[in-house]
Amino acid sequence: MNFTFLVNIGANLAKNLKFIQERYNPEFLYMKAIEVINNKLEVREAQLPELKDDEILIKVKAAGLNRADIAQKNGLYPPPPGASEILGLECSGIIESVGKKVSSKKPGEEVIALLAGGGYAEYVACPEYHAISKPDALNWVEAASIPEVYATCWLNLFMEAGMKKGDKVVFHAGASGIGTAGVQLAKVFGCDSFVSAGSREKIDFCIDLGASAGEIRSNDIFASIMDWSPKGADIILDPVGAEYLENNLQVLGMEGRLVIIGLMGGAQSNLNLGHLMIKRQKIIGSTIRARNKDKKNEIMKELSNKVLPLFDQGLLKPIIHEALPFSQCERAHVIMEANENIGKIILNLD
Amino acid sequence: MNFTFLVNIGANLAKNLKFIQERYNPEFLYMKAIEVINNKLEVREAQLPELKDDEILIKVKAAGLNRADIAQKNGLYPPPPGASEILGLECSGIIESVGKKVSSKKPGEEVIALLAGGGYAEYVACPEYHAISKPDALNWVEAASIPEVYATCWLNLFMEAGMKKGDKVVFHAGASGIGTAGVQLAKVFGCDSFVSAGSREKIDFCIDLGASAGEIRSNDIFASIMDWSPKGADIILDPVGAEYLENNLQVLGMEGRLVIIGLMGGAQSNLNLGHLMIKRQKIIGSTIRARNKDKKNEIMKELSNKVLPLFDQGLLKPIIHEALPFSQCERAHVIMEANENIGKIILNLD
Repeated sequence: MNFTFLVNIGANLAKNLKFIQERYNPEFLYMKAIEVINNKLEVREAQLPELKDDEILIKVKAAGLNRADIAQKNGLYPPPPGASEILGLECSGIIESVGKKVSSKKPGEEVIALLAGGGYAEYVACPEYHAISKPDALNWVEAASIPEVYATCWLNLFMEAGMKKGDKVVFHAGASGIGTAGVQLAKVFGCDSFVSAGSREKIDFCIDLGASAGEIRSNDIFASIMDWSPKGADIILDPVGAEYLENNLQVLGMEGRLVIIGLMGGAQSNLNLGHLMIKRQKIIGSTIRARNKDKKNEIMKELSNKVLPLFDQGLLKPIIHEALPFSQCERAHVIMEANENIGKIILNLD
Repeated sequence: MNFTFLVNIGANLAKNLKFIQERYNPEFLYMKAIEVINNKLEVREAQLPELKDDEILIKVKAAGLNRADIAQKNGLYPPPPGASEILGLECSGIIESVGKKVSSKKPGEEVIALLAGGGYAEYVACPEYHAISKPDALNWVEAASIPEVYATCWLNLFMEAGMKKGDKVVFHAGASGIGTAGVQLAKVFGCDSFVSAGSREKIDFCIDLGASAGEIRSNDIFASIMDWSPKGADIILDPVGAEYLENNLQVLGMEGRLVIIGLMGGAQSNLNLGHLMIKRQKIIGSTIRARNKDKKNEIMKELSNKVLPLFDQGLLKPIIHEALPFSQCERAHVIMEANENIGKIILNLD
């Protein structure tokens, strides 16, 4: 054993230690995360996510709940290949470290992020461009309410349905996170909106936010839509699916776009292609989670440029139903499953 | 009665005569046109079309037949409001006169035109921008085969379905006018196409035109599509409708676009929104005839700039099944109704 050999051992040890520090090697570091145990949520210990070269590691300050989390919890919505098994599609937080090839972000930056999974945890990794700077006007809880609903609205209203000034837009489940975001976006971009929702209170809330009309789900929503817009709607954003399909197409006007983003009312339906053709309508099936990395980059870039400044200008506001501590994740899900919320439910890790 | 009065009378007479000459006042001028008499076609005398200020009057040299003409003849496809009651959605010809506000066209110019109706006649009027210069390489009969099928393909493949290089495109009724145009456009723009058709002869014809595969309608078209493209098709241009809907969506790949342009197989269908959503597919109902003037202007401008030069360059060729004299219009329809044709049937008025 000579001196050179000892020096090599020392250098290797230092290198390995650096690697461990840089990469939060999951064999050495653990975090708190929420796990699904017999369809209930519990805080457990989990390995830190592995950080890929083009990813950033975020220390989560708050995480938003989404209805898709319920489906995933119940085994009905598996995460896309390569995504974390942990629930959670959005968060706010501080960048803890960055992968080797990351060029746009630095540790210490405050961000909000669209996630393919993993948000219900102390740390989450995501591609660098899926995180964008947190608006200054928002606190952590408010900021965590933005990525999923605004990315979904931006993608579906603007990119898929080509929403433009003067369009008449229907939001079913108008008091949901997506509905309350959509109503505000429609107003800011010069469109008129109609909401359906489960109660008069929810309708009134949406009208305060900028919708011009609405109807309670137990009444005849579709007759009310025709009263609101005798020529029909230009766009319908619909999380219901089969149960509403034929009525939706009836109240959709010439060259109208029906964007299906959920199937709360089933998947199997009848369809009359004659009306679809004569009215030159489009039915668009859309999800955001399984989109490829580039598409998500594009959506988040547009959000950052065109939507986030509107929060700082006071033209959009986050709609928070309730923020609960991380430890009360199970209760948070119970509230969402009861459909009681207006706007978003948030887990607070701060 | 003084001199000034006589001059005024003379001036008014001259003005009126000029008006008559300019406008082909229908009270004074008649033309031959095809009328539907007991569901049969006959050449009769008809009033010349009235020329609006933004329209041109074309002396028709040849007129293309389209399947929509059959539906209209049978009372199933009324012309859009304001359009001629005479059949005929496309023609080639020479501009005879122009309306007061026409700025882009002059009498004597050779054009092809997309019509909302009225093509089965000696003269037809249409908005100035719905006519574009006839390609030099084409004779009158060939030129008359272009507007409707190429405008339909351009609208639906490029504008509606966003066709781009590398896309895999299915044409049902591949040997039709639209099919033979679509297969050629797909090839020129770097896309791979598959056709379904009624006979081996028709499939082979399409493969000669540039399709890479095809299947006879009596066999399992959809299994053959999956053999041709295991990931499914990017675009399906479909004149069949209900009968094919569920199978079409099955063989449509991720983010695929199904454009419904006809209902030869009925209108009422089942639809599984689950597949549509997970695969982020679009169903697009489309017709061209009832589109507004501006949209048709846009389509024809793009045709003129991007497609017609390809005829002069020999990269596209008109596919004419048969050209018949104007007087044999009834026989022309019998051929189309028997579905025997490969490519277009044309009425020759030259």
